[in-house]
Amino acid sequence: MYTLYYSPGSASMLVHLVLLECGAPHVLERVDLEAGQQRSVAYLALNPNGVVPTLLIDGVPHGEAAALAMLLAERHADAALAPAMGSPERADYLQWMLYLANSLQPRFRQWFYPDDDLPSASDAVKEAARIGVEACWSRINTHLATHGPYLLGETFSVVDLYALMLMRWSRNMPRPATSWPHLAELATRLKARPSWQRLCANEGLTEWA
Amino acid sequence: MYTLYYSPGSASMLVHLVLLECGAPHVLERVDLEAGQQRSVAYLALNPNGVVPTLLIDGVPHGEAAALAMLLAERHADAALAPAMGSPERADYLQWMLYLANSLQPRFRQWFYPDDDLPSASDAVKEAARIGVEACWSRINTHLATHGPYLLGETFSVVDLYALMLMRWSRNMPRPATSWPHLAELATRLKARPSWQRLCANEGLTEWA
Ligand SMILES: N[C@@H](CCC(=O)N[C@@H](CS)C(=O)NCC(=O)O)C(=O)O
Ligand SMILES: N[C@@H](CCC(=O)N[C@@H](CS)C(=O)NCC(=O)O)C(=O)O
Repeated sequence: MYTLYYSPGSASMLVHLVLLECGAPHVLERVDLEAGQQRSVAYLALNPNGVVPTLLIDGVPHGEAAALAMLLAERHADAALAPAMGSPERADYLQWMLYLANSLQPRFRQWFYPDDDLPSASDAVKEAARIGVEACWSRINTHLATHGPYLLGETFSVVDLYALMLMRWSRNMPRPATSWPHLAELATRLKARPSWQRLCANEGLTEWA
Repeated sequence: MYTLYYSPGSASMLVHLVLLECGAPHVLERVDLEAGQQRSVAYLALNPNGVVPTLLIDGVPHGEAAALAMLLAERHADAALAPAMGSPERADYLQWMLYLANSLQPRFRQWFYPDDDLPSASDAVKEAARIGVEACWSRINTHLATHGPYLLGETFSVVDLYALMLMRWSRNMPRPATSWPHLAELATRLKARPSWQRLCANEGLTEWA
């Protein structure tokens, strides 16, 4: 049994989407980030980094959105959300998950939390993050132009759900992801899935929904 | 058959270490980063991001250091470098790989390449990166204090090799990783492995070797 600690529209969205795609029964527990609940003693015991998501699996807490997405794809192999171990697509799958986790998601963190490390430098950190995010979108768009329509080609996977979350995060940036044509096409395609509709309803998302 | 495009001491080190730990036959191709070879047309065809590592597997190029480490651990399951799918340690394994990939490695990139995105802000970006790196070391040290000696507890895994590379990268920073006692202990333990000795010899590393 799964319990997901989440906050609407945050990094927990990826895990929530994967749970819905798997059809895995789960309970949602909202963490009020505005109120600082992620820094409460009770929550830090579940997630020492004080961030969402946390996923309880049979009562044991685990963190890191991308890791949880990969784990759920493994645990629910019948949902076919990731290429199987040993398949030729496996390298591409891991490469794209790690590209998003290593090059793109951290820059969003800096865009949304530019004060995290050195508050006096927040403007510079934020502007550098914006430039880095846009460089990543360009690269992904170029990849999709010849290797799409999904990030792994013809096959939908959790990589696309990860990209969808990150695309949504860019919606109010100077240049949203959907201003790149192949990213826009991907977003449209993914938003047509029942998992997206249910996610928006469950999390109460109205903007970019 | 594997061919690893590498540069001594760079992110390719993780993949090189994993190849040695697996005992997998491989060929090393050095990329001269100082000379800008990573931006040559020939290399960009292998790695559109213009970075090392690239690993050719049966002639097909793949990137992202952490992804390649995970892939090799899967392909060489007998080397037992990662908890098997379905095992209770799997969630922890993915969580720590992704923590290093998402929170720590990107800050090293910013420490070493502060000009990447916004050259005029490089001092601020670099200082923010230093603070972020140190916050990660503190967290990992705290984890090791109660859950060590390896990152996954009693069992050595590729997560430790990843941490070892990142620890080496911090050697000339104001506060190197090894100034945290449990990280120092982990580094000593890992450097005693034959893979480390061979890596240093093959890559010609003398500092922190
Ligand atoms: N590396 C973590 C980062 C998660 C993260 O940054 N979560 C944000 C929301 S998108 C959060 O919890 N922010 C609250 C805070 O930092 O106080 C992951 O991928 O799970
Ligand atoms: N996300 C990539 C990053 C690799 C990376 O940043 N490599 C550096 C060396 S540590 C590089 O190739 N630098 C040369 C350059 O950027 O021009 C990975 O993990 O493989």
